[in-house]
Amino acid sequence: MKPFDMSLIQRGARVRRSPFFEATLRDGCRSYTVYNHMFLPSYYAEPEDEYQHLLEHVTLWDVSVERQVEITGPDAFAFTNLITPRDLHTCAVGQGKYVLITDSAGGILNDPVLLRLGENHFWLALADSDILLWAKGVAYGTGMRVELGEPDVSPIQIQGPKSKEVVRALFGERVDDLAYYHFFETKLDGIPLVVTRTGWTGEVGYELYLRDGSRGVDLWDRVLAAGKPHHIRPTGPSDIRRIEAGMLNHGIDMTQDDNPYQVGLGWLVDTKKEADLVGKEALATIRAAGVRRKLVGIEIEGDRIPFNMVRWPIHQADRPVGHVTSAIYSPRLKKNIAYAMVPAESSALGVELTVEIPEIGRRRARVVPKPFIDPEKEIPKS
Amino acid sequence: MKPFDMSLIQRGARVRRSPFFEATLRDGCRSYTVYNHMFLPSYYAEPEDEYQHLLEHVTLWDVSVERQVEITGPDAFAFTNLITPRDLHTCAVGQGKYVLITDSAGGILNDPVLLRLGENHFWLALADSDILLWAKGVAYGTGMRVELGEPDVSPIQIQGPKSKEVVRALFGERVDDLAYYHFFETKLDGIPLVVTRTGWTGEVGYELYLRDGSRGVDLWDRVLAAGKPHHIRPTGPSDIRRIEAGMLNHGIDMTQDDNPYQVGLGWLVDTKKEADLVGKEALATIRAAGVRRKLVGIEIEGDRIPFNMVRWPIHQADRPVGHVTSAIYSPRLKKNIAYAMVPAESSALGVELTVEIPEIGRRRARVVPKPFIDPEKEIPKS
Repeated sequence: MKPFDMSLIQRGARVRRSPFFEATLRDGCRSYTVYNHMFLPSYYAEPEDEYQHLLEHVTLWDVSVERQVEITGPDAFAFTNLITPRDLHTCAVGQGKYVLITDSAGGILNDPVLLRLGENHFWLALADSDILLWAKGVAYGTGMRVELGEPDVSPIQIQGPKSKEVVRALFGERVDDLAYYHFFETKLDGIPLVVTRTGWTGEVGYELYLRDGSRGVDLWDRVLAAGKPHHIRPTGPSDIRRIEAGMLNHGIDMTQDDNPYQVGLGWLVDTKKEADLVGKEALATIRAAGVRRKLVGIEIEGDRIPFNMVRWPIHQADRPVGHVTSAIYSPRLKKNIAYAMVPAESSALGVELTVEIPEIGRRRARVVPKPFIDPEKEIPKS
Repeated sequence: MKPFDMSLIQRGARVRRSPFFEATLRDGCRSYTVYNHMFLPSYYAEPEDEYQHLLEHVTLWDVSVERQVEITGPDAFAFTNLITPRDLHTCAVGQGKYVLITDSAGGILNDPVLLRLGENHFWLALADSDILLWAKGVAYGTGMRVELGEPDVSPIQIQGPKSKEVVRALFGERVDDLAYYHFFETKLDGIPLVVTRTGWTGEVGYELYLRDGSRGVDLWDRVLAAGKPHHIRPTGPSDIRRIEAGMLNHGIDMTQDDNPYQVGLGWLVDTKKEADLVGKEALATIRAAGVRRKLVGIEIEGDRIPFNMVRWPIHQADRPVGHVTSAIYSPRLKKNIAYAMVPAESSALGVELTVEIPEIGRRRARVVPKPFIDPEKEIPKS
């Protein structure tokens, strides 16, 4: 692989750089993508090499692109509870939740990690869509008393079996008591942070939310120093690992056109929620009627496939029935695994399908259980 | 410059490809950026070479990234008129307008080209932000009866002094009568299109809005064939030309944190508009009080500068006062030209400033009139 060519990244300031950008360049990042109008470091070495490192040691990712929507003001709780189908009465201050943001039709606009920093103080750490605009629109129309903005907050992820030791070296024993999807606020040599036990891997993992963009490289270097005995290494997010773990990528595996029930995220809709909710009626109707399409796990036969670049068509008995959303080769399973959006009647375990792969041709596939690995952990149920 | 390395573009389907993508690759596009969750071809050759071609001949750009928000339904006129400060009573069916989308604070969320296709049928051709989410949020809260979506519509621009001849070769003499910011609907060998006289150059120019994504390469090749006698060539949008012409790039030269009066777009606010408008009060207050910061044109002394990658700090008499948003070398003016956001009291013509350029150092600069070229045309006043 070649060293990164700066001329290939966006010229001009429209695409923003993270507080860690200079460190990621210095540490050899070779490819950036764009996410929430910012550069996201996607890899420093071969993705499979980074995946192995994540499985065995500990990795550091710049995920500043998880921009926050900050919600404050007297109606902040009611407003935040209005825009997610989970019931936030069960979310204490100091606790986080994996949530969906749905529109009036029940379509999934985003799937952020929500942190409750105060009675009326929330952050939504976003996937790739401008939820600040959605929130401002809802606030305008409803007249609720909230302040909405994007604060100076930039997360990094520390993921892998040795992540706990690295985070403990930085913050001490309080890390041992940190429950999944909980957090504490702290400083590290004066650098203001929120430390959460969250991540996008199915491995043990943490996120540090940097609250002062001028201290990015300082924080990065402190984490690398603390991780040195554990062979820490900067990498991109691992698509292999997140697909193995059954995690979905918004914009690929689920979009505005999909509802939670289609993609296996019905557990993120609290059906007994009494408060008003954007999409409440639509979600109830969909639940009652059952879904017509479903996102399933499939295994694709034959040689190792490339990571998919576009939606691959799926046939069942020569009839077009759907498409692959994400597909990848799992080195541990020694299998090609993928998500496929298919009609509900084609979604049962064992159903035989055919996948049409550009430049490769047709491959046999069949529906299998997901997650592909980690049936205990699956998607972060918190 | 090297041929484009496919491994450097985003793997996975989150970033979408345009209907013209295969043609742009085939025709030698060397760099893509990401805009509205899609790949935007940014150049095929040296940007200055593409600029010269735009000045002398005719160029073809894939700007499918200008995604449309389509607004229909019984309240479509009232809704569209609510979300832009222009008074749409002056926009006939068959006519377009350059408009702003403002939030409750008067901040600029986007600056689309609006097309009115029917009494209650509008398209907004977007700059890089998810205005569909904003519109859905406003519709939810206000309960207005509108349908909102992203239709299968993908524009290309044909720009340059020979563009009229190319478009006439494709669509005949009706092109001669097409007024600035007007359009007609038509088909080209069965390919459904909207043809507008618009563009982002200050040169004569047209856009073809493709209404069937399966026909992208067909259309592209027909345009290239029609343009062959006029030396048509695929290029990226020209930052040199748009800056010379005084045009702003949303996300760089203006953001959600800026209001129309700060950036010289006060003429896009109809102060006598009677209908309700998001941000009406805020805009009136700002107008009455006057702005504290202003976007001005500056010339930067000395050797040719690089196109700026980040916001360059500006000092006045050693005091930090603002930043450069876009800067570029104009080969025609043989000068470095830029936009700068400075305090209103530092915005008068002739004010002397200092610009701090990374890896180059301090340069003297002064406030000059904008547009830098084309005082007659300036920003599309239609």
